[in-house]
Amino acid sequence: MGYELHYWPMIPGRGEFVRLALEEAGAPYRDVAREDGDDGGIAPMLDRLSDPDDLRPPFAPPFLRDGAVMIGQTAAILLYLGPRLGLVGDVEADRIWTHQIQLTVADAVNEAHDTHHPVGVGLYYADQKPEALRRAKDFREARIPKFLGWFERILAANGGAHLVGAEISYADLSLFQLVEGLRYAFPRATARALRDAPHVAALREAVSERPRIAAYLASSRRIPFNEDGIFRRYPELDG
Amino acid sequence: MGYELHYWPMIPGRGEFVRLALEEAGAPYRDVAREDGDDGGIAPMLDRLSDPDDLRPPFAPPFLRDGAVMIGQTAAILLYLGPRLGLVGDVEADRIWTHQIQLTVADAVNEAHDTHHPVGVGLYYADQKPEALRRAKDFREARIPKFLGWFERILAANGGAHLVGAEISYADLSLFQLVEGLRYAFPRATARALRDAPHVAALREAVSERPRIAAYLASSRRIPFNEDGIFRRYPELDG
Repeated sequence: MGYELHYWPMIPGRGEFVRLALEEAGAPYRDVAREDGDDGGIAPMLDRLSDPDDLRPPFAPPFLRDGAVMIGQTAAILLYLGPRLGLVGDVEADRIWTHQIQLTVADAVNEAHDTHHPVGVGLYYADQKPEALRRAKDFREARIPKFLGWFERILAANGGAHLVGAEISYADLSLFQLVEGLRYAFPRATARALRDAPHVAALREAVSERPRIAAYLASSRRIPFNEDGIFRRYPELDG
Repeated sequence: MGYELHYWPMIPGRGEFVRLALEEAGAPYRDVAREDGDDGGIAPMLDRLSDPDDLRPPFAPPFLRDGAVMIGQTAAILLYLGPRLGLVGDVEADRIWTHQIQLTVADAVNEAHDTHHPVGVGLYYADQKPEALRRAKDFREARIPKFLGWFERILAANGGAHLVGAEISYADLSLFQLVEGLRYAFPRATARALRDAPHVAALREAVSERPRIAAYLASSRRIPFNEDGIFRRYPELDG
Protein backbone atom coordinates (compact mmCIF):
# COMPACT_ATOMS: atom_id res chain seq x y z
CA MET A 1 0.00 0.00 0.00
CA GLY A 2 2.17 2.87 1.23
CA TYR A 3 2.08 6.60 0.67
CA GLU A 4 1.42 8.33 -2.64
CA LEU A 5 3.44 11.44 -3.42
CA HIS A 6 2.23 13.76 -6.17
CA TYR A 7 4.67 16.33 -7.52
CA TRP A 8 6.08 17.68 -10.77
CA PRO A 9 8.25 14.87 -12.14
CA MET A 10 11.12 16.81 -13.74
CA ILE A 11 12.39 18.85 -10.77
CA PRO A 12 13.39 18.05 -7.18
CA GLY A 13 11.53 21.15 -5.99
CA ARG A 14 9.50 21.09 -2.81
CA GLY A 15 8.64 17.44 -3.33
CA GLU A 16 12.23 16.54 -2.51
CA PHE A 17 11.79 17.46 1.16
CA VAL A 18 9.08 14.82 1.36
CA ARG A 19 11.07 12.24 -0.63
CA LEU A 20 14.07 12.57 1.69
CA ALA A 21 11.91 11.84 4.74
CA LEU A 22 10.30 8.82 3.09
CA GLU A 23 13.69 7.52 1.88
CA GLU A 24 15.45 7.97 5.22
CA ALA A 25 12.68 6.02 6.92
CA GLY A 26 12.63 3.31 4.26
CA ALA A 27 8.90 3.90 3.92
CA PRO A 28 7.05 2.38 0.98
CA TYR A 29 5.78 5.07 -1.34
CA ARG A 30 4.78 5.74 -4.92
CA ASP A 31 6.16 8.81 -6.67
CA VAL A 32 3.10 8.81 -8.86
CA ALA A 33 3.96 11.47 -11.44
CA ARG A 34 7.28 9.74 -12.18
CA GLU A 35 5.67 6.37 -12.90
CA ASP A 36 4.78 5.12 -16.33
CA GLY A 37 1.57 3.28 -16.97
CA ASP A 38 -2.07 4.02 -16.75
CA ASP A 39 -2.17 5.20 -13.16
CA GLY A 40 1.12 7.16 -13.27
CA GLY A 41 2.21 10.46 -14.76
CA ILE A 42 0.90 13.88 -13.83
CA ALA A 43 -2.70 13.21 -14.83
CA PRO A 44 -3.72 11.89 -11.39
CA MET A 45 -2.12 14.96 -9.78
CA LEU A 46 -3.88 17.40 -12.09
CA ASP A 47 -7.14 15.52 -11.59
CA ARG A 48 -6.87 15.89 -7.81
CA LEU A 49 -6.13 19.60 -8.05
CA SER A 50 -9.27 20.24 -10.09
CA ASP A 51 -11.63 17.52 -8.86
CA PRO A 52 -14.89 19.31 -8.05
CA ASP A 53 -15.89 16.48 -5.71
CA ASP A 54 -12.78 16.82 -3.57
CA LEU A 55 -13.80 18.54 -0.34
CA ARG A 56 -10.22 19.25 0.73
CA PRO A 57 -8.24 19.86 -2.45
CA PRO A 58 -4.58 20.88 -2.17
CA PHE A 59 -3.71 24.38 -3.36
CA ALA A 60 -0.63 23.16 -5.22
CA PRO A 61 1.81 20.23 -5.43
CA PRO A 62 3.41 18.56 -3.59
CA PHE A 63 0.67 16.65 -1.87
CA LEU A 64 0.62 13.29 -0.18
CA ARG A 65 -2.10 10.70 -0.04
CA ASP A 66 -2.24 8.31 2.89
CA GLY A 67 -5.35 6.22 2.37
CA ALA A 68 -8.28 8.58 2.77
CA VAL A 69 -6.14 11.48 3.99
CA MET A 70 -4.76 13.98 1.47
CA ILE A 71 -2.28 16.61 2.64
CA GLY A 72 -0.78 19.56 0.79
CA GLN A 73 1.89 22.07 1.81
CA THR A 74 5.37 20.61 2.30
CA ALA A 75 5.66 21.57 5.95
CA ALA A 76 2.22 20.15 6.74
CA ILE A 77 3.14 16.89 5.01
CA LEU A 78 6.26 16.60 7.16
CA LEU A 79 4.27 17.50 10.26
CA TYR A 80 2.02 14.56 9.47
CA LEU A 81 4.79 12.15 8.46
CA GLY A 82 7.25 13.01 11.23
CA PRO A 83 5.75 10.86 14.01
CA ARG A 84 4.80 8.08 11.58
CA LEU A 85 8.32 7.81 10.18
CA GLY A 86 10.14 8.27 13.48
CA LEU A 87 11.62 11.54 12.22
CA VAL A 88 10.57 13.79 15.09
CA GLY A 89 10.72 13.57 18.87
CA ASP A 90 7.87 12.39 21.08
CA VAL A 91 7.56 15.53 23.19
CA GLU A 92 5.33 18.37 21.98
CA ALA A 93 8.01 21.01 22.60
CA ASP A 94 10.41 19.10 20.33
CA ARG A 95 7.76 18.65 17.67
CA ILE A 96 6.85 22.31 17.54
CA TRP A 97 10.53 23.33 17.50
CA THR A 98 11.23 20.90 14.64
CA HIS A 99 8.28 22.37 12.75
CA GLN A 100 9.47 25.90 13.44
CA ILE A 101 12.83 25.01 11.90
CA GLN A 102 11.07 23.44 8.91
CA LEU A 103 9.07 26.63 8.34
CA THR A 104 12.29 28.63 8.39
CA VAL A 105 13.79 26.27 5.79
CA ALA A 106 10.63 26.88 3.75
CA ASP A 107 11.12 30.64 4.00
CA ALA A 108 14.68 30.26 2.71
CA VAL A 109 13.46 28.04 -0.13
CA ASN A 110 10.85 30.64 -1.13
CA GLU A 111 13.46 33.36 -1.16
CA ALA A 112 15.87 31.23 -3.21
CA HIS A 113 13.09 30.70 -5.75
CA ASP A 114 12.33 34.40 -5.92
CA THR A 115 15.92 35.25 -6.90
CA HIS A 116 15.16 34.07 -10.42
CA HIS A 117 11.44 34.95 -10.33
CA PRO A 118 11.23 38.24 -8.43
CA VAL A 119 8.43 39.63 -10.58
CA GLY A 120 6.17 36.64 -10.92
CA VAL A 121 5.96 32.92 -11.49
CA GLY A 122 3.98 33.45 -14.68
CA LEU A 123 6.90 35.10 -16.48
CA TYR A 124 10.12 33.59 -17.84
CA TYR A 125 13.44 34.27 -16.18
CA ALA A 126 14.61 36.06 -19.34
CA ASP A 127 11.76 38.53 -18.90
CA GLN A 128 12.75 39.49 -15.35
CA LYS A 129 16.53 39.27 -15.45
CA PRO A 130 17.36 42.85 -14.35
CA GLU A 131 15.11 42.39 -11.31
CA ALA A 132 16.65 38.97 -10.68
CA LEU A 133 20.17 40.39 -10.63
CA ARG A 134 19.21 42.87 -7.94
CA ARG A 135 17.26 40.40 -5.85
CA ALA A 136 20.00 37.77 -6.05
CA LYS A 137 22.58 40.27 -4.79
CA ASP A 138 20.50 40.90 -1.67
CA PHE A 139 19.92 37.17 -1.23
CA ARG A 140 23.62 36.33 -1.55
CA GLU A 141 24.93 39.12 0.61
CA ALA A 142 22.28 39.37 3.32
CA ARG A 143 19.90 36.43 3.33
CA ILE A 144 22.12 33.35 2.82
CA PRO A 145 24.42 34.42 5.68
CA LYS A 146 21.44 35.24 7.90
CA PHE A 147 19.69 31.92 7.33
CA LEU A 148 22.84 29.78 7.56
CA GLY A 149 23.94 31.79 10.58
CA TRP A 150 20.73 30.92 12.42
CA PHE A 151 20.99 27.23 11.55
CA GLU A 152 24.64 27.28 12.69
CA ARG A 153 23.66 28.87 15.98
CA ILE A 154 20.91 26.39 16.81
CA LEU A 155 23.00 23.40 15.68
CA ALA A 156 25.89 24.53 17.88
CA ALA A 157 23.53 25.07 20.81
CA ASN A 158 22.30 21.48 20.43
CA GLY A 159 25.79 19.96 20.35
CA GLY A 160 26.33 20.11 16.60
CA ALA A 161 25.18 16.72 15.34
CA HIS A 162 21.44 17.33 14.95
CA LEU A 163 19.08 20.28 14.93
CA VAL A 164 16.73 18.79 17.55
CA GLY A 165 17.60 16.27 20.24
CA ALA A 166 20.02 13.41 19.70
CA GLU A 167 18.42 11.75 16.68
CA ILE A 168 17.83 12.60 13.07
CA SER A 169 14.66 14.57 12.33
CA TYR A 170 12.98 15.73 9.16
CA ALA A 171 14.45 19.17 9.86
CA ASP A 172 17.99 17.77 9.47
CA LEU A 173 17.03 16.26 6.13
CA SER A 174 15.42 19.49 4.99
CA LEU A 175 18.45 21.57 5.98
CA PHE A 176 20.59 19.15 3.97
CA GLN A 177 18.39 19.73 0.93
CA LEU A 178 18.38 23.50 1.36
CA VAL A 179 22.19 23.57 1.55
CA GLU A 180 22.50 21.26 -1.47
CA GLY A 181 20.21 23.57 -3.40
CA LEU A 182 22.12 26.67 -2.37
CA ARG A 183 25.43 25.02 -3.30
CA TYR A 184 23.99 24.23 -6.72
CA ALA A 185 22.47 27.64 -7.40
CA PHE A 186 24.97 29.91 -5.67
CA PRO A 187 28.19 27.87 -5.40
CA ARG A 188 30.48 30.78 -4.63
CA ALA A 189 28.21 32.64 -2.22
CA THR A 190 27.29 29.44 -0.41
CA ALA A 191 30.90 28.29 -0.06
CA ARG A 192 31.68 31.65 1.53
CA ALA A 193 28.73 31.42 3.93
CA LEU A 194 29.51 27.82 4.88
CA ARG A 195 32.99 28.82 6.03
CA ASP A 196 31.20 30.63 8.86
CA ALA A 197 28.79 27.73 9.42
CA PRO A 198 30.96 24.66 10.03
CA HIS A 199 28.24 22.72 11.84
CA VAL A 200 25.86 23.24 8.93
CA ALA A 201 28.52 22.03 6.50
CA ALA A 202 29.20 18.97 8.70
CA LEU A 203 25.50 18.16 9.00
CA ARG A 204 25.11 18.33 5.22
CA GLU A 205 27.92 15.82 4.82
CA ALA A 206 26.69 13.55 7.60
CA VAL A 207 23.19 13.39 6.09
CA SER A 208 24.63 12.58 2.65
CA GLU A 209 26.48 9.61 4.19
CA ARG A 210 23.53 8.03 5.98
CA PRO A 211 23.13 4.62 4.34
CA ARG A 212 19.60 5.04 3.02
CA ILE A 213 20.19 8.63 1.92
CA ALA A 214 23.47 7.71 0.21
CA ALA A 215 21.74 4.88 -1.65
CA TYR A 216 18.91 7.20 -2.61
CA LEU A 217 21.22 9.95 -3.84
CA ALA A 218 23.02 7.41 -6.05
CA SER A 219 19.75 6.10 -7.49
CA SER A 220 17.66 7.28 -10.42
CA ARG A 221 14.96 8.25 -7.92
CA ARG A 222 16.99 11.36 -7.06
CA ILE A 223 16.25 14.07 -9.61
CA PRO A 224 19.25 16.31 -10.34
CA PHE A 225 18.90 20.03 -9.76
CA ASN A 226 18.15 21.82 -13.01
CA GLU A 227 17.07 25.15 -14.45
CA ASP A 228 13.35 24.39 -14.28
CA GLY A 229 13.37 24.03 -10.51
CA ILE A 230 13.59 26.17 -7.40
CA PHE A 231 17.38 26.17 -7.24
CA ARG A 232 18.77 27.21 -10.63
CA ARG A 233 22.38 27.71 -11.61
CA TYR A 234 22.42 31.01 -13.43
CA PRO A 235 26.07 32.04 -12.95
CA GLU A 236 25.23 35.74 -13.25
CA LEU A 237 23.10 35.46 -10.08
CA ASP A 238 26.06 34.13 -8.06
CA GLY A 239 27.88 37.46 -8.38
CA MET B 1 0.07 34.45 33.95
CA GLY B 2 -0.94 34.20 30.28
CA TYR B 3 0.91 34.26 27.01
CA GLU B 4 3.56 36.76 25.96
CA LEU B 5 3.53 37.92 22.36
CA HIS B 6 6.60 39.63 20.96
CA TYR B 7 6.27 41.54 17.70
CA TRP B 8 7.05 44.90 16.11
CA PRO B 9 4.71 47.37 17.83
CA MET B 10 3.89 49.74 14.97
CA ILE B 11 2.42 47.33 12.39
CA PRO B 12 -0.23 44.59 12.44
CA GLY B 13 2.03 42.38 10.34
CA ARG B 14 2.33 38.69 11.03
CA GLY B 15 1.75 39.24 14.74
CA GLU B 16 -1.87 40.09 13.96
CA PHE B 17 -2.70 36.48 13.07
CA VAL B 18 -1.66 35.50 16.59
CA ARG B 19 -3.49 38.42 18.20
CA LEU B 20 -6.75 37.52 16.48
CA ALA B 21 -6.61 33.98 17.84
CA LEU B 22 -5.86 35.17 21.37
CA GLU B 23 -8.61 37.81 21.19
CA GLU B 24 -11.28 35.46 19.81
CA ALA B 25 -10.54 33.02 22.63
CA GLY B 26 -10.47 35.73 25.27
CA ALA B 27 -7.08 34.44 26.35
CA PRO B 28 -4.98 36.52 28.71
CA TYR B 29 -1.86 37.77 26.98
CA ARG B 30 0.73 40.51 27.06
CA ASP B 31 1.62 42.28 23.81
CA VAL B 32 5.02 43.01 25.25
CA ALA B 33 6.49 45.38 22.68
CA ARG B 34 3.42 47.63 22.90
CA GLU B 35 3.64 48.02 26.66
CA ASP B 36 5.30 50.92 28.40
CA GLY B 37 7.41 50.41 31.45
CA ASP B 38 10.58 48.62 32.31
CA ASP B 39 9.61 45.19 31.03
CA GLY B 40 7.82 46.39 27.88
CA GLY B 41 8.91 47.79 24.56
CA ILE B 42 10.96 46.01 21.94
CA ALA B 43 14.05 45.52 24.14
CA PRO B 44 12.85 42.14 25.52
CA MET B 45 12.15 40.98 21.97
CA LEU B 46 15.53 42.04 20.66
CA ASP B 47 17.20 40.47 23.68
CA ARG B 48 15.56 37.12 22.99
CA LEU B 49 16.56 37.18 19.35
CA SER B 50 20.21 37.65 20.22
CA ASP B 51 20.48 35.92 23.57
CA PRO B 52 23.52 33.61 23.28
CA ASP B 53 22.19 31.45 26.11
CA ASP B 54 18.91 30.74 24.36
CA LEU B 55 19.08 27.21 22.99
CA ARG B 56 16.01 27.62 20.77
CA PRO B 57 15.99 31.22 19.60
CA PRO B 58 13.34 32.36 17.12
CA PHE B 59 14.58 33.37 13.66
CA ALA B 60 12.38 36.47 13.61
CA PRO B 61 9.29 38.01 15.23
CA PRO B 62 6.54 37.20 15.93
CA PHE B 63 7.23 34.75 18.70
CA LEU B 64 5.19 33.60 21.65
CA ARG B 65 6.25 32.68 25.12
CA ASP B 66 4.16 30.26 27.15
CA GLY B 67 6.03 29.72 30.37
CA ALA B 68 9.22 27.87 29.45
CA VAL B 69 8.16 27.28 25.83
CA MET B 70 9.13 29.82 23.17
CA ILE B 71 7.72 29.47 19.68
CA GLY B 72 8.49 31.40 16.51
CA GLN B 73 6.92 31.28 13.03
CA THR B 74 3.31 32.44 12.86
CA ALA B 75 1.91 29.13 11.60
CA ALA B 76 3.79 27.17 14.29
CA ILE B 77 2.44 29.51 16.97
CA LEU B 78 -1.11 28.89 15.77
CA LEU B 79 -0.45 25.15 15.56
CA TYR B 80 0.50 25.32 19.23
CA LEU B 81 -2.30 27.65 20.30
CA GLY B 82 -5.10 26.04 18.29
CA PRO B 83 -5.94 23.19 20.67
CA ARG B 84 -5.29 25.32 23.77
CA LEU B 85 -7.65 28.08 22.62
CA GLY B 86 -10.33 25.79 21.20
CA LEU B 87 -9.66 27.12 17.71
CA VAL B 88 -9.08 23.82 15.92
CA GLY B 89 -10.89 20.50 15.79
CA ASP B 90 -10.00 17.48 17.90
CA VAL B 91 -9.37 15.06 15.04
CA GLU B 92 -5.88 14.88 13.50
CA ALA B 93 -7.23 15.11 9.95
CA ASP B 94 -9.00 18.38 10.82
CA ARG B 95 -5.93 19.76 12.53
CA ILE B 96 -3.61 19.06 9.62
CA TRP B 97 -6.15 20.48 7.15
CA THR B 98 -6.51 23.64 9.24
CA HIS B 99 -2.74 23.97 9.30
CA GLN B 100 -2.54 23.40 5.54
CA ILE B 101 -4.97 26.29 5.04
CA GLN B 102 -2.94 28.45 7.41
CA LEU B 103 0.24 27.76 5.42
CA THR B 104 -1.57 28.79 2.25
CA VAL B 105 -2.65 32.04 3.93
CA ALA B 106 1.02 32.51 4.86
CA ASP B 107 2.06 32.04 1.23
CA ALA B 108 -0.43 34.70 0.17
CA VAL B 109 0.85 37.04 2.88
CA ASN B 110 4.44 36.57 1.70
CA GLU B 111 3.45 37.33 -1.85
CA ALA B 112 1.50 40.43 -0.79
CA HIS B 113 4.60 41.66 1.02
CA ASP B 114 6.80 41.06 -1.98
CA THR B 115 4.66 43.29 -4.20
CA HIS B 116 6.29 46.31 -2.56
CA HIS B 117 9.61 44.60 -1.81
CA PRO B 118 10.31 42.39 -4.82
CA VAL B 119 14.06 43.02 -4.74
CA GLY B 120 14.83 42.77 -1.06
CA VAL B 121 13.71 43.65 2.44
CA GLY B 122 16.88 45.66 3.00
CA LEU B 123 15.92 48.30 0.41
CA TYR B 124 13.29 51.02 0.53
CA TYR B 125 10.17 50.81 -1.62
CA ALA B 126 11.29 53.91 -3.50
CA ASP B 127 14.42 52.03 -4.57
CA GLN B 128 12.51 49.12 -6.10
CA LYS B 129 9.43 50.79 -7.48
CA PRO B 130 9.75 49.71 -11.13
CA GLU B 131 10.11 46.10 -10.00
CA ALA B 132 7.19 46.55 -7.59
CA LEU B 133 4.92 47.80 -10.36
CA ARG B 134 5.58 44.65 -12.40
CA ARG B 135 5.24 42.27 -9.48
CA ALA B 136 2.04 43.91 -8.26
CA LYS B 137 0.45 43.51 -11.68
CA ASP B 138 1.07 39.77 -11.61
CA PHE B 139 -0.17 39.57 -8.02
CA ARG B 140 -3.38 41.50 -8.80
CA GLU B 141 -4.21 39.72 -12.01
CA ALA B 142 -3.11 36.16 -11.31
CA ARG B 143 -2.39 35.54 -7.65
CA ILE B 144 -5.22 37.29 -5.76
CA PRO B 145 -7.86 35.51 -7.91
CA LYS B 146 -6.05 32.19 -7.54
CA PHE B 147 -5.75 32.39 -3.76
CA LEU B 148 -9.27 33.73 -3.18
CA GLY B 149 -10.62 31.21 -5.68
CA TRP B 150 -9.15 28.34 -3.67
CA PHE B 151 -10.51 29.68 -0.38
CA GLU B 152 -13.90 30.13 -2.04
CA ARG B 153 -13.85 26.57 -3.29
CA ILE B 154 -13.01 25.00 0.07
CA LEU B 155 -15.45 27.24 1.94
CA ALA B 156 -18.26 26.29 -0.44
CA ALA B 157 -17.35 22.60 -0.14
CA ASN B 158 -17.67 22.89 3.64
CA GLY B 159 -21.07 24.57 3.56
CA GLY B 160 -19.88 28.16 3.47
CA ALA B 161 -19.81 29.24 7.10
CA HIS B 162 -16.37 27.98 8.15
CA LEU B 163 -13.24 26.67 6.49
CA VAL B 164 -13.06 23.54 8.63
CA GLY B 165 -15.92 21.75 10.35
CA ALA B 166 -18.83 23.59 11.95
CA GLU B 167 -16.93 25.85 14.34
CA ILE B 168 -14.59 28.78 14.08
CA SER B 169 -10.91 27.90 13.68
CA TYR B 170 -7.74 29.94 13.57
CA ALA B 171 -7.81 29.50 9.79
CA ASP B 172 -11.09 31.46 9.59
CA LEU B 173 -9.52 34.28 11.60
CA SER B 174 -6.41 34.25 9.43
CA LEU B 175 -8.42 34.36 6.21
CA PHE B 176 -10.32 37.34 7.63
CA GLN B 177 -7.02 39.14 8.25
CA LEU B 178 -5.64 38.26 4.81
CA VAL B 179 -8.75 39.64 3.14
CA GLU B 180 -8.68 42.78 5.31
CA GLY B 181 -5.06 43.31 4.32
CA LEU B 182 -5.78 42.79 0.64
CA ARG B 183 -8.74 45.18 0.81
CA TYR B 184 -6.47 47.79 2.36
CA ALA B 185 -3.55 47.36 -0.03
CA PHE B 186 -5.38 46.54 -3.26
CA PRO B 187 -8.93 47.87 -2.78
CA ARG B 188 -9.90 47.76 -6.45
CA ALA B 189 -8.33 44.43 -7.34
CA THR B 190 -9.66 42.81 -4.17
CA ALA B 191 -13.20 44.11 -4.68
CA ARG B 192 -13.12 42.58 -8.16
CA ALA B 193 -11.83 39.23 -6.87
CA LEU B 194 -14.36 39.14 -4.02
CA ARG B 195 -17.23 39.40 -6.48
CA ASP B 196 -16.23 35.89 -7.55
CA ALA B 197 -15.71 34.74 -3.97
CA PRO B 198 -18.98 35.46 -2.14
CA HIS B 199 -18.36 32.93 0.63
CA VAL B 200 -14.98 34.53 1.36
CA ALA B 201 -16.62 37.96 1.50
CA ALA B 202 -19.33 36.63 3.83
CA LEU B 203 -16.79 34.94 6.11
CA ARG B 204 -14.82 38.18 6.38
CA GLU B 205 -17.95 39.99 7.49
CA ALA B 206 -19.06 37.24 9.87
CA VAL B 207 -15.66 37.20 11.59
CA SER B 208 -15.70 41.00 11.95
CA GLU B 209 -19.05 40.72 13.76
CA ARG B 210 -18.08 38.09 16.29
CA PRO B 211 -18.46 39.81 19.66
CA ARG B 212 -14.89 39.51 20.88
CA ILE B 213 -13.42 40.30 17.46
CA ALA B 214 -15.72 43.31 17.02
CA ALA B 215 -14.70 44.61 20.44
CA TYR B 216 -11.06 44.05 19.61
CA LEU B 217 -11.29 45.78 16.23
CA ALA B 218 -12.84 48.82 17.92
CA SER B 219 -10.13 48.93 20.58
CA SER B 220 -6.71 50.57 20.60
CA ARG B 221 -5.18 47.10 20.69
CA ARG B 222 -5.93 46.77 16.97
CA ILE B 223 -3.14 48.45 15.00
CA PRO B 224 -4.34 50.07 11.76
CA PHE B 225 -2.78 48.95 8.51
CA ASN B 226 -0.06 51.36 7.43
CA GLU B 227 2.78 51.83 4.98
CA ASP B 228 5.41 50.22 7.22
CA GLY B 229 3.65 46.86 7.27
CA ILE B 230 3.05 43.88 5.03
CA PHE B 231 -0.10 45.31 3.42
CA ARG B 232 0.63 48.81 2.13
CA ARG B 233 -1.66 51.12 0.24
CA TYR B 234 0.42 52.39 -2.64
CA PRO B 235 -2.30 53.32 -5.14
CA GLU B 236 0.00 52.78 -8.13
CA LEU B 237 0.28 49.10 -7.19
CA ASP B 238 -3.51 48.64 -7.37
CA GLY B 239 -3.48 49.24 -11.12
